[in-house]
Amino acid sequence: MKEYRGFLIDLDGTVYKGTEKIDEAVTFVKQLKDKGFPYLFLTNNSTKHPSDVSDKLNQMGVPSTTDQVFTSSMATAHYIKQQEPNAKVYPVGEKGLHMALEDADLEIVDENADYVVMGLDQTINYEKLAKGALNIRAGATFVATNGDVALPTERGFLPGAGSLISVLSVTTGVEPTFIGKPESIIVDQALEVLGTTRDETLMIGDNYATDILAGINAGIDSLLVHTGVTTKEDLKTIQNKPTYTIDTLAEWTIED
Amino acid sequence: MKEYRGFLIDLDGTVYKGTEKIDEAVTFVKQLKDKGFPYLFLTNNSTKHPSDVSDKLNQMGVPSTTDQVFTSSMATAHYIKQQEPNAKVYPVGEKGLHMALEDADLEIVDENADYVVMGLDQTINYEKLAKGALNIRAGATFVATNGDVALPTERGFLPGAGSLISVLSVTTGVEPTFIGKPESIIVDQALEVLGTTRDETLMIGDNYATDILAGINAGIDSLLVHTGVTTKEDLKTIQNKPTYTIDTLAEWTIED
Repeated sequence: MKEYRGFLIDLDGTVYKGTEKIDEAVTFVKQLKDKGFPYLFLTNNSTKHPSDVSDKLNQMGVPSTTDQVFTSSMATAHYIKQQEPNAKVYPVGEKGLHMALEDADLEIVDENADYVVMGLDQTINYEKLAKGALNIRAGATFVATNGDVALPTERGFLPGAGSLISVLSVTTGVEPTFIGKPESIIVDQALEVLGTTRDETLMIGDNYATDILAGINAGIDSLLVHTGVTTKEDLKTIQNKPTYTIDTLAEWTIED
Repeated sequence: MKEYRGFLIDLDGTVYKGTEKIDEAVTFVKQLKDKGFPYLFLTNNSTKHPSDVSDKLNQMGVPSTTDQVFTSSMATAHYIKQQEPNAKVYPVGEKGLHMALEDADLEIVDENADYVVMGLDQTINYEKLAKGALNIRAGATFVATNGDVALPTERGFLPGAGSLISVLSVTTGVEPTFIGKPESIIVDQALEVLGTTRDETLMIGDNYATDILAGINAGIDSLLVHTGVTTKEDLKTIQNKPTYTIDTLAEWTIED
């Protein structure tokens, strides 16, 4: 087993399940902190501000600061800032997306946008979709925080960002650039924040289709932990395996 | 030219454009009425009740009764009634859809639906989409009034029924049965209402992709009139032509 110096860690299914912490993950992150390894929580959830996520983690006993949370909304804002520093953006999303764009000093507009950015929006309405469509038809570049088609909740699977985003792609015929996992864009951004190299960084997550593929697509090693979505059975039919697979993070030994 | 005894007539682009009547169409429909030929207005617009549509037509001088308007919502309600007379339905749509389901004596429910029916809904919100997704995942049959991806308005092209419907198909992985034009289902239903045979009925419309294809798919003759969407240029690249093509309905001679 290689020694890794930096860790990108998924949240839901890896560190907690909804409102329940996963004990082995709490212990694992505490060890990373004690041993001084840099780590960053990497989430496709575009709706929350990193300070809210960090607060939730700390309440569960998972040591974290706001700077150690990296959301798909933040990756999206960074991406646009890199492409066009003075871009005008029309966002369709929740607080986490709006705040990420503001934190990146991007101008938010209703019309004549350079970019239409869409993420999960549980306050979606027809007027927001109409403005998104009009801006894209007028030439705005279409960017999406993440493509998850379903949102796991206690009620069952509800529509995720990827399914809401399809309204704009179907009506305009324009496919968005996706930023979140499994795309490499969010991992590339996260590595810059973490400050470790590809070679010494490990991507940890429970979901093959997002977390592990993000690692593979970005060319970094990956660790699948069976505490969430992807089962051992699922993995049998998959060709391109994770670098490592474990049942819980208690099985993973952190070098000194 | 064949003699036709019954006429299925599209509305927007054929009889009027938005709020403006098309004079040649008004004269044409008056002649149909004077000569006693049965005609039925066939529209993919699922949002209006037929009485509202008929009122608008009469105000423009187009003779019509409520019974002479057949919407995609009505075709959808008839379709479900034929499939399962006691079906429980969860609708996502506007007044026209709700009223059509009630007119067909179908029970409207939030949960445990046998059918999820979706049409254009300009009051769409996340909770409606969530309930639609949960019902489909629980086994409800998914039916859509029409697949039009864009809605022409004075602001430009806004999201149409087909793009909103994609939220549910993408999140559940279940494709709906579409009822409206260009599907033959709505034409089959309309022929029953009109009471004429396939052989003696003509489908008239301005849009190749909906009106004319509906005629072709249902096996009835079609007349494309260049007062709306489809241009002569568009038609050049199309293999499967309309039976007839004219510039305005003034060119069409109605037999006695």
